[in-house]
Amino acid sequence: MVSFESDYIAGAHPEIIKKLTETNLESLSGYGTDLYSESAKSRIIEAIGRDVDVEFLVGGTQTNAVIISTMLSGYEGVIAARTGHVSAHEAGAIEYTGHKVIELPGIDGKLSADTIYKYLSEFYDDDNHEHMVFPGMVYISFPTEYGTLYSKNELKKISDVCHDFDIPLFIDWARLGYGLMSKENDLTISDIADLCDVFYIGGTKVGALCGEAAVFTRGNKPVHFMTSVKQHGALLAKGRLLGIQFATLFTDDLYFRISAHAIEMASKLKKILSAHGLEFYIDSPTNQQFVVLENDLLERLKKDVSVSFWEKKDEDHTVVRLATSWSTTEEDLEALERALQ
Amino acid sequence: MVSFESDYIAGAHPEIIKKLTETNLESLSGYGTDLYSESAKSRIIEAIGRDVDVEFLVGGTQTNAVIISTMLSGYEGVIAARTGHVSAHEAGAIEYTGHKVIELPGIDGKLSADTIYKYLSEFYDDDNHEHMVFPGMVYISFPTEYGTLYSKNELKKISDVCHDFDIPLFIDWARLGYGLMSKENDLTISDIADLCDVFYIGGTKVGALCGEAAVFTRGNKPVHFMTSVKQHGALLAKGRLLGIQFATLFTDDLYFRISAHAIEMASKLKKILSAHGLEFYIDSPTNQQFVVLENDLLERLKKDVSVSFWEKKDEDHTVVRLATSWSTTEEDLEALERALQ
Amino acid sequence: MVSFESDYIAGAHPEIIKKLTETNLESLSGYGTDLYSESAKSRIIEAIGRDVDVEFLVGGTQTNAVIISTMLSGYEGVIAARTGHVSAHEAGAIEYTGHKVIELPGIDGKLSADTIYKYLSEFYDDDNHEHMVFPGMVYISFPTEYGTLYSKNELKKISDVCHDFDIPLFIDWARLGYGLMSKENDLTISDIADLCDVFYIGGTKVGALCGEAAVFTRGNKPVHFMTSVKQHGALLAKGRLLGIQFATLFTDDLYFRISAHAIEMASKLKKILSAHGLEFYIDSPTNQQFVVLENDLLERLKKDVSVSFWEKKDEDHTVVRLATSWSTTEEDLEALERALQ
Amino acid sequence: MVSFESDYIAGAHPEIIKKLTETNLESLSGYGTDLYSESAKSRIIEAIGRDVDVEFLVGGTQTNAVIISTMLSGYEGVIAARTGHVSAHEAGAIEYTGHKVIELPGIDGKLSADTIYKYLSEFYDDDNHEHMVFPGMVYISFPTEYGTLYSKNELKKISDVCHDFDIPLFIDWARLGYGLMSKENDLTISDIADLCDVFYIGGTKVGALCGEAAVFTRGNKPVHFMTSVKQHGALLAKGRLLGIQFATLFTDDLYFRISAHAIEMASKLKKILSAHGLEFYIDSPTNQQFVVLENDLLERLKKDVSVSFWEKKDEDHTVVRLATSWSTTEEDLEALERALQ
Repeated sequence: MVSFESDYIAGAHPEIIKKLTETNLESLSGYGTDLYSESAKSRIIEAIGRDVDVEFLVGGTQTNAVIISTMLSGYEGVIAARTGHVSAHEAGAIEYTGHKVIELPGIDGKLSADTIYKYLSEFYDDDNHEHMVFPGMVYISFPTEYGTLYSKNELKKISDVCHDFDIPLFIDWARLGYGLMSKENDLTISDIADLCDVFYIGGTKVGALCGEAAVFTRGNKPVHFMTSVKQHGALLAKGRLLGIQFATLFTDDLYFRISAHAIEMASKLKKILSAHGLEFYIDSPTNQQFVVLENDLLERLKKDVSVSFWEKKDEDHTVVRLATSWSTTEEDLEALERALQ
Repeated sequence: MVSFESDYIAGAHPEIIKKLTETNLESLSGYGTDLYSESAKSRIIEAIGRDVDVEFLVGGTQTNAVIISTMLSGYEGVIAARTGHVSAHEAGAIEYTGHKVIELPGIDGKLSADTIYKYLSEFYDDDNHEHMVFPGMVYISFPTEYGTLYSKNELKKISDVCHDFDIPLFIDWARLGYGLMSKENDLTISDIADLCDVFYIGGTKVGALCGEAAVFTRGNKPVHFMTSVKQHGALLAKGRLLGIQFATLFTDDLYFRISAHAIEMASKLKKILSAHGLEFYIDSPTNQQFVVLENDLLERLKKDVSVSFWEKKDEDHTVVRLATSWSTTEEDLEALERALQ
Repeated sequence: MVSFESDYIAGAHPEIIKKLTETNLESLSGYGTDLYSESAKSRIIEAIGRDVDVEFLVGGTQTNAVIISTMLSGYEGVIAARTGHVSAHEAGAIEYTGHKVIELPGIDGKLSADTIYKYLSEFYDDDNHEHMVFPGMVYISFPTEYGTLYSKNELKKISDVCHDFDIPLFIDWARLGYGLMSKENDLTISDIADLCDVFYIGGTKVGALCGEAAVFTRGNKPVHFMTSVKQHGALLAKGRLLGIQFATLFTDDLYFRISAHAIEMASKLKKILSAHGLEFYIDSPTNQQFVVLENDLLERLKKDVSVSFWEKKDEDHTVVRLATSWSTTEEDLEALERALQ
Repeated sequence: MVSFESDYIAGAHPEIIKKLTETNLESLSGYGTDLYSESAKSRIIEAIGRDVDVEFLVGGTQTNAVIISTMLSGYEGVIAARTGHVSAHEAGAIEYTGHKVIELPGIDGKLSADTIYKYLSEFYDDDNHEHMVFPGMVYISFPTEYGTLYSKNELKKISDVCHDFDIPLFIDWARLGYGLMSKENDLTISDIADLCDVFYIGGTKVGALCGEAAVFTRGNKPVHFMTSVKQHGALLAKGRLLGIQFATLFTDDLYFRISAHAIEMASKLKKILSAHGLEFYIDSPTNQQFVVLENDLLERLKKDVSVSFWEKKDEDHTVVRLATSWSTTEEDLEALERALQ
């Protein structure tokens, strides 16, 4: 059985396991005050090339909820694509913090600067807008839920709209590495730090056992952030677990090297799927591929290959997702190929 | 200056003022335990013709928030039309209680049974639905934000879908009277009590100074409801203010008589607007009328008539709302007619 | 049957009823934008003698929840006496907004400056205070739940501690009039506005049908306050109901005159209770009196007089509260006297 | 430098690191559906000897917040000792979920059955209890914040009170092992499962990198618990991290063996502290010891030994905590002894 079910099917990159083992019996202080967490922060700042604030959290939904709720005022909500992770797939974690997700229509998972501009202008033109939720932030993900990417130009325009209306732009970068390493990507990590106000660098999906690094780019880390993190039940006692992992991922470009591998595997995966005449549901340039399968084929495939259900297309067809990651091997691809024959 | 700005521009129906005056110095117990509140409940039960539970609250947004948050489980959200009052015009009051408003597309402010059915089926068909907000209630308003009505057949179908999926149907009836008295309406208050699980009867917009009556139709009033009301800051110390008003409104059909008057005024208003060649933005059979005005005309009109901004149609045109109510007079209509010449 | 059950057993002061009647059919804009609300604000500002911001809300618990939650940061809680209204008798309305009530011990319902200082100093001395709720406000009530008062000197000291630690002092003044008119009081409304950062002037218990006036004394009204009020379900459509009442109460010192009457009645009440040898549970200089009754006497009294249960003292005795108000008459006192014979 | 700062200064028990390494490249499904999580649940059920429901979470504050908020109704709060972890040291995480922590006085960190009974009886005796937060659960920790333990008899009485009032008893067992292995303890894990309704078994402080196991003992796991966990941002994508750790800890009694070691170390620590004439702040039978140090001694000690600040006793003395754990060695104790000479 081979699995393309998600990009979090394996444990951690072996370098991380090695480092966790080596440091295991060291006495370290808790809650992220240890030296590895400090070191990880420095390395991330160096990779970004800007003086930012970095804080580690455990998981993606948690990171979204903590960032959004600590940066918004009580009367504000966050704009997101209707298909955005915070809109659709986080069990209402944002609303649980008391804030509305203002859902706007996207295309292939992406929001356009025009859509955002139109919403914001009409909001302020409306005489009754004081009876509505104030739009206090824009949330996008990169890659999106559909594996698509924003170009530098697109992102620049969104950033401009946000700054015209004086609200922060937040990028959910759960799959940062897979976005940056895509051949279609024209953005660098520094570009993104220039264009947005806050983002997070995903660890869970890119080589770590768990962990996300929240990055505040404009001296805008919320006051007493650690207390808010604790209040959300998100403060890890053994902060070392996050520090050691990110310090390892940001040593010798490990994070980017393993991401490039995943993208290469995705490119081969795409060729295999194409060669077997499968219909792509969307054209994704990153590590997640979406194909339409006849239900019979899906049933047969499932005996040997794990894939992820995406949605029912019609009575006879299903959209499934196949994801590669740092842990995908040539053998995995060969097994898939055999199963498709 | 004459006003069609809203259906809450006047104080209370004179009968209410009279009754408040007469009872003013009586010593009454607080928090809705007084005899007038009891009497009001009995009269409403009688009007509905079913053994329901009635509880009084102060305002509409508050009533929506209290009903929705006390009836949903923590992991549930409420389905509503994207244009629904709870979705768009309550400043995020529902999300403030921690629950998502699951927004579905409507037509002319109305949700269809098909749209709801499709959402619910796809939700349960999705293998990953445990990562999403469970749809725990359907919210509709009657009339809608656009003054439109559900027919008995339409409501029956929605009710059937809700019951098939075992979730309650909640009707926001802020303008109950104006809906029921419309010539296009084919529903009675008893029909609605049969078809839905909870609704509220609007007082604020139909003759009261304030006050809404929440009605639970299936022995489904949330446990310790009064405590939850207090927790929401919604418990009125002098409950008599609500009891006396509703007791008066439900004596000798006052509520329905004054609603019928508003509908008659709306019918005359429609004729006047038509006669002046104005374009209707939507065909509304109730007390709210929406017309498209050239901005020049709007500016001129504003000198003599208050209307309510609805939305910008284009650079040169604006959609405005004119509402009649129990307090609208023939003189008001004549003044409008003069202003339109 | 005569009632001393609470200070909200009657409707509104007759002047208010008269004014509601006179203005009833005027067309007024909604949500507190009407001229009576404006006028009420001006009169309150004049009475206070300072340039403050005034906003009207409907009830006391609601006002406490809205003020506290809009003024605190997410990681902050509010300090209150363990017996404070927000701590014990508001069904958790403050916690419902996500904030802890940090309960400190009081004496006779009052917090001392020393107790507050000790808590704040120890908090900041604690190396681990970032794992605790930050104390972000001090809440006191005046009179307290037990009818007791802070002297000018006591309040000055509390105010100094708050300002030393840079947190606002909030005074719940649900019974403002009854506190100010007490013979033991040495504070004026201007003193209080000088010493605290926010307070509210109670209407419900001092002559209104409903309504409280929140007063922000330092240009510190929360941004987009109206939107937050709406979000809490606390925005009244017919704001006129609040405006007209407060405009009336603050015309010709009505608020203070009727409060002085209540205090005079309380002083006579005290004499009657003393004359019958009843034990006072606490020495209250305001309109609420607490006495210990043998259960037999209580049962007998209840046939003719309503009083309010306070707490069981022991198997044979009960503490009850008797309250006077603007509506208490000499006849009420005579009836009580007869019942006690 | 040697550290007695806390029981979470080291990484994981070496057996856990070994197992994480061995299983690292296996493809496993996410969110706790993997075979190691299943196996860990079975082993815990076996250790308890009862058919319970087990769910894994990441940290202690998170586990408390998720359990409490999913088990309480909206109008309920949780009773805890004033010094309880949820009351004092979780940054208001419980209140953030909208529920009050009803703080009662304890002795040495422990609540007594009498105190709880008195509160509950008086609550229901109070005519106005519908205006107060309903007590919906009792929370205790074992060992407490002060390292003290409940005897079987004490726990039985608390359990009886809870069941008389029909509310669940929740035990925060962050340090389960250290409590059970104490020589003064007379409870077994099965006793506790019999006496309480929900508890959690701490991993973070007893050998794991992170992780707590919530145990519901009466078929009372909240409906759609996984969705609520996600909504709280508490669902770990790589659930294997928790499953593998708990499966290892509950193989061959590892959890209990390493706990016994910590208790033995604590016993030796106690002797060392006594031998140096130090005053114990409290008599703790578990792995946390609290002593009063002169500030001069503390300053000197800090050069070689990390301890944890507890509270200032007076100008010249400080209370500090020294904790042992599974990772404490004889060498650590010797180093402490040297530092104290």
